[in-house]
Amino acid sequence: MAGIKVHGNVFSTAAQRVFACLYEKDIDFEFVPVDMKSGEHKSEAFLAKNPFGQVPAFEQGDLTLFESRAITQYIAGQYADKGTALTCPGKPMPLLLVWKEVEAHQFDPIASKLNWEIVLKPMFGMTTDTAAAEELEAKLAKVLDVYEARLAQSKFLACDCFTLADMHHLPNIQLLLGTPVKKHFDCRPHVSAWVANITARPAWAKVLAMQSKQ
Amino acid sequence: MAGIKVHGNVFSTAAQRVFACLYEKDIDFEFVPVDMKSGEHKSEAFLAKNPFGQVPAFEQGDLTLFESRAITQYIAGQYADKGTALTCPGKPMPLLLVWKEVEAHQFDPIASKLNWEIVLKPMFGMTTDTAAAEELEAKLAKVLDVYEARLAQSKFLACDCFTLADMHHLPNIQLLLGTPVKKHFDCRPHVSAWVANITARPAWAKVLAMQSKQ
Ligand SMILES: N[C@@H](CCC(=O)N[C@@H](CS)C(=O)NCC(=O)O)C(=O)O
Ligand SMILES: N[C@@H](CCC(=O)N[C@@H](CS)C(=O)NCC(=O)O)C(=O)O
Repeated sequence: MAGIKVHGNVFSTAAQRVFACLYEKDIDFEFVPVDMKSGEHKSEAFLAKNPFGQVPAFEQGDLTLFESRAITQYIAGQYADKGTALTCPGKPMPLLLVWKEVEAHQFDPIASKLNWEIVLKPMFGMTTDTAAAEELEAKLAKVLDVYEARLAQSKFLACDCFTLADMHHLPNIQLLLGTPVKKHFDCRPHVSAWVANITARPAWAKVLAMQSKQ
Repeated sequence: MAGIKVHGNVFSTAAQRVFACLYEKDIDFEFVPVDMKSGEHKSEAFLAKNPFGQVPAFEQGDLTLFESRAITQYIAGQYADKGTALTCPGKPMPLLLVWKEVEAHQFDPIASKLNWEIVLKPMFGMTTDTAAAEELEAKLAKVLDVYEARLAQSKFLACDCFTLADMHHLPNIQLLLGTPVKKHFDCRPHVSAWVANITARPAWAKVLAMQSKQ
């Protein structure tokens, strides 16, 4: 089978989702850095890989994929027997479907906007909209209340195993842990244990190590 | 197999996704109206079905699911051989994964916010934020440029068959067709043919007919 290339940026949360998946699956891949500062992601060559002009893009022979969660689902299905399963044992897996959607529609829209306000804007010399950040923080706390109740019943979100549903959270959680928002994870015992567990995965350490190689 | 109940509201775009799926699959279900005006979706009884307090919620015997796109994927998998397939013929289906994610992450965040500004706010006696609506409209136009290029190559988004990826768009598109934003669909020939095609599906007519029974 042809080699895998991931076009992206080590600081991109979306690209990190794909790197984490490939490391969990123990699959070799070539990382192709995209120079976002010079706008390479809006070049014709890159738009042929992802017409929305965003990283990551995934290539394997003739197959070109984009959207981080589509790529991770493809990898999990294609390499089901390699490395970490990333799915619940046995089928059907309705709760894996539910908790993947929860990450995408309840957690990510809040967490990624909050990271934009309190992590990325300051990094780019822009001013945080404090009112917006506070509103997002309050919304995140409500979402984490639901997570706390779920994780009191189940070791991981979808079942008793680490799955795509947990893994998709890692990039945004990692950024938030470096901010005062960390307290909302810490004060919920089951959420806090889950965060400690998933951020300690060797595959995630490898994703973070990519940053120091830059 | 136990009967299916869908708790929701006939005007909820998320609930409509699930109704459309059940009609496409020709599966009987009981529609259980949730009185959102009186806040029934935030009642303890409803929160036991969906802890995020949103419609729809799906029940079948002991199984309770929420998040509209998780429910449709569950139904498509569970009843693969009944009614419309809603998946691409043959497997694996990497492009179905990609285009489902495009709807969720590129189309829906813009289309649902735009509908909020120009359809729902006026309906609730609130004032449209015209600047926000214009910005969203411009973003939607860019997304539709990508759709136009895709639909010039492929009859439907994921492949040559109608799939979940197309179906998930229906509720937001239907609302936008009743607004001046319709012109952005009309002026793109492949998008326009696709919209005409998917909105003409008998299953979708049944979803719209539920509204007049209210
Ligand atoms: N839904 C997409 C989001 C991708 C995304 O937003 N990537 C960012 C970096 S994390 C990007 O390329 N931004 C540049 C842009 O949107 O122009 C995915 O999950 O792959
Ligand atoms: N991502 C959810 C969205 C559900 C949703 O936003 N439902 C709306 C009606 S369309 C709702 O219940 N809103 C009430 C609320 O959020 O309090 C899904 O796809 O099921």
